[in-house]
Amino acid sequence: MAGSALEAALTRLARDARRGALSRDAALARVDAAALRELLRPRLEPAALAGLPRWSGGLTGSAGAASGRLYLSAEALLAAKREAAAPGYVLALPEALAADVPGLAAADAVISAEGGYAAHAAVLARQYGTAAVLAPGLRIRGKKALLGGLALHEGDPVSVDAPAAAPPSVYAGAVPLAREARGGPALRAVLGLARDALREAGFAVRCNADSAPDAALGRALGAEGVGLCRTEHMFFAPERLPFFQALLLSAARGERDAALEALFHFQQDDFYALLAAAAGKPVTIRLLDAPLHEFLPPPSAREIAPLASRMGLSAREARARIASLREKNPMLGLRGCRVGVVFPELYAMQVRAIMAAACRARRERKKVTLDILIPFVINERECKLIAYGRKIEGGGFAGIAGAAEAFFAEAGERAIPFRIGAMIETPAAALAAAGIARYAAFFCIGGNDLTQTALGISRDDCGSFLPAYTRADLIAADPFAALEGPAAELAETALERGRQTRPGLPCCFCGEQAASPQGARWCAASGFDSISCSSRAVPIAALAAAQTLAGG
Amino acid sequence: MAGSALEAALTRLARDARRGALSRDAALARVDAAALRELLRPRLEPAALAGLPRWSGGLTGSAGAASGRLYLSAEALLAAKREAAAPGYVLALPEALAADVPGLAAADAVISAEGGYAAHAAVLARQYGTAAVLAPGLRIRGKKALLGGLALHEGDPVSVDAPAAAPPSVYAGAVPLAREARGGPALRAVLGLARDALREAGFAVRCNADSAPDAALGRALGAEGVGLCRTEHMFFAPERLPFFQALLLSAARGERDAALEALFHFQQDDFYALLAAAAGKPVTIRLLDAPLHEFLPPPSAREIAPLASRMGLSAREARARIASLREKNPMLGLRGCRVGVVFPELYAMQVRAIMAAACRARRERKKVTLDILIPFVINERECKLIAYGRKIEGGGFAGIAGAAEAFFAEAGERAIPFRIGAMIETPAAALAAAGIARYAAFFCIGGNDLTQTALGISRDDCGSFLPAYTRADLIAADPFAALEGPAAELAETALERGRQTRPGLPCCFCGEQAASPQGARWCAASGFDSISCSSRAVPIAALAAAQTLAGG
Repeated sequence: MAGSALEAALTRLARDARRGALSRDAALARVDAAALRELLRPRLEPAALAGLPRWSGGLTGSAGAASGRLYLSAEALLAAKREAAAPGYVLALPEALAADVPGLAAADAVISAEGGYAAHAAVLARQYGTAAVLAPGLRIRGKKALLGGLALHEGDPVSVDAPAAAPPSVYAGAVPLAREARGGPALRAVLGLARDALREAGFAVRCNADSAPDAALGRALGAEGVGLCRTEHMFFAPERLPFFQALLLSAARGERDAALEALFHFQQDDFYALLAAAAGKPVTIRLLDAPLHEFLPPPSAREIAPLASRMGLSAREARARIASLREKNPMLGLRGCRVGVVFPELYAMQVRAIMAAACRARRERKKVTLDILIPFVINERECKLIAYGRKIEGGGFAGIAGAAEAFFAEAGERAIPFRIGAMIETPAAALAAAGIARYAAFFCIGGNDLTQTALGISRDDCGSFLPAYTRADLIAADPFAALEGPAAELAETALERGRQTRPGLPCCFCGEQAASPQGARWCAASGFDSISCSSRAVPIAALAAAQTLAGG
Repeated sequence: MAGSALEAALTRLARDARRGALSRDAALARVDAAALRELLRPRLEPAALAGLPRWSGGLTGSAGAASGRLYLSAEALLAAKREAAAPGYVLALPEALAADVPGLAAADAVISAEGGYAAHAAVLARQYGTAAVLAPGLRIRGKKALLGGLALHEGDPVSVDAPAAAPPSVYAGAVPLAREARGGPALRAVLGLARDALREAGFAVRCNADSAPDAALGRALGAEGVGLCRTEHMFFAPERLPFFQALLLSAARGERDAALEALFHFQQDDFYALLAAAAGKPVTIRLLDAPLHEFLPPPSAREIAPLASRMGLSAREARARIASLREKNPMLGLRGCRVGVVFPELYAMQVRAIMAAACRARRERKKVTLDILIPFVINERECKLIAYGRKIEGGGFAGIAGAAEAFFAEAGERAIPFRIGAMIETPAAALAAAGIARYAAFFCIGGNDLTQTALGISRDDCGSFLPAYTRADLIAADPFAALEGPAAELAETALERGRQTRPGLPCCFCGEQAASPQGARWCAASGFDSISCSSRAVPIAALAAAQTLAGG
């Protein structure tokens, strides 16, 4: 259904429901949740496109549209954006690496030579609500990008149109955006019906948001708070990275402490802004989950010498330390709460920053409802240690609870109430859920990682075989898009075993799998009580979940 | 118990059992399976030790023995090993840091100034099967190591003897290793009792063997055939690698076919030698399971140009093709039977080579009992495709069964009977075992990969956090050594669901987890009917399994 026809249909439904000609639940049942995607995306002003040179092809990785200037590296884009050099920012890349994340987050659209809906650029773009075009034919040569017959230079005006269910287009030239799509009054009315149905059923659809603007967008689109704030990307900003590097590399205790202190202040501002943007709604903040080496230059790079001298190390020592953080399989390495076990001071700093931010919000009479989430848990003992700490040989670890308590005591602040939860994203954690629930007050199922580990398929590396699997019908659908198979069974196991220990354990399914109509329906029918997904998917997930729960 | 006392005790037990003073099962019950490790470990030739300067003390972190040259940093050892500068490599370190892991993996023995069985060096050495000496008195000054009164310089010949239950020794000088330890007549007699008990119970302990000598060693140590032949290493030999590279890279169909044909002949010889060495016993051959990029040079390397010109590609094309095979997480990438889905001709070649080898062995009146194993399965449809093929759009795939049939028809040979089985090493496969068993005549549980995926822990990358986990008692033991927790639960699920579909489904547990006394007992008690492990562990696993099953 085209956008305008859909809008007319929604207008009729909302009107009929308002007049009582149709019950709320009957009205909800008539909406095609998937079709909303097209209503919610930004679009280019059609009249302005005529005559512009155009390339069309590839795959939409994330529906949307944007117009601006073209940049061929995250650095170039960020530099231009710092100077507000362009009306919009389009990033073209051979592939999206972790170091490109700040650039991706700042871009209005991304064009990547990666293939497949599960490509890194596509996943991130969906999360940021940025348009993404996957164009395996894209070639970048120096300051020039070639897209079929379209040759574009860095800084050129460019426009991207990425419809949900048709091949995307790239235009050479600037085109104004049609007014921001939030679905208009008809959609808002229908979503109001969905919200009522969800509240009745005690089900919440939240947004994944790493910053205040993310949280504000989610709120505007109906999210009941922030279900997942990831803290990884907060450390990549150029004014922060040196401190994070010092923390990982410096030989001097004093310097590491100073770096922690600096990061504490940055983090406090991050968390305050987020809590303020989501005030009155719950916010779940996940402690750091990232392969640490992503924060360091490659050991051979020129930057080693100045970095080493800043850290009081010889270049050789710095290289060795950096090499020691390099991993063959970072997805299965020093990540998740393993970081908290190895660098407890880092987690303690994050907890202090969260509590400081929460105290500040409270002073300003903003209502704070706070959850802290432990990432990539594997078993009960690990969850217990991170949550509640323990004296161990050669020191000790206060855990999240202890770090928070220490902060309140030092700061002379009344304690902020919060819950500690576990992110269930390994098969081990799903199977050990009964034990983990002894120390976790809520669960968050991490769909992407659970799918990765259950299938032994990395999202970053499946492009070489998933197309063949799909052609031969070996996998029913993109496993990172559909909620089914082993990840679904493990999620159910986690829910069931967790609730054996703690009846009524709150359980959220987090990730884009839960944001499709099928996934949202599955979650609502399987006993989950919330979903967290990218802001732009919130209306779709909310509607699908409401359809499942309404009149139930 | 020291080696000689143990041998005397075994001699008495064997004699009592022979005379009927003790039942077979009572005699078996009196043997400490773990203590056999001491009888089976490598040892230094005693006659050659006389007069060598010696230091003795500290603690054995990992039992074994080695002789070679001394290196005082991982870097120095790795540099020497790259040039094959020494007959063996002994690493001495103040402590094992994560950066030292590659050096530790390459060493034949390690001496660390750390204390305690749980020291990082000890944990890693046990994992790599390397001897480890923990010598807290070790001092390293520049290129010199001081061990009590013993002063050793980098590059000096040095020998290490690390008994399981007595203080280790370090000798200044090179000493040959004693001939392969096979435990002597007393051990053989006791293992004969174990073999009887296992045969009665219908349980087999097999060896992992990738070559005829491996299989012969396993046979000498009592293995009932080869439970796992890995085919990855067969392609690395310098005369083979260019063909394998041509197969992956060449643009010309004719050249790829020629490479396949060349590899077919090499593989036929490999498989014939293995089948001949194990004649009369079953042999399970696993089709290729390896990240393909391991076979290619890094895309920036000098070797690209000649490689590319051999392949009829431009250097740029070759680089792009190689880069496309590079992976961020190769453990979760294009590996296992995904290789067979993407390059079916490779699997077909392996099947033809296996059948040709089996026909040759049959002509020479060698008894062949053959199983073919599909690696890293994730679901039923994939297993069905690889096993039995299917016409698919744009061609087809004959599967293992079809490739074998085609070979017999072309070669005019009577068919060789064989079974096709699935390797269960992802949580997804364990959960989907009921469906997979429709197409798999047997299961082999791959303990290492199942542990890796269940826990989200890569064996290659755990050195940076497992020591902290062990110190804090967050994991009961080295998860790649103990058979417990999620991998054990998933293995049980696979067994149970597989047998729902196919009652009596043969099920082997493969890997070092099954080779410890605890693991072997667990397998025997959990309904498995075989174990496959490294040859040296076969006697221990056989004894432990026999103790569990005897008189049961």
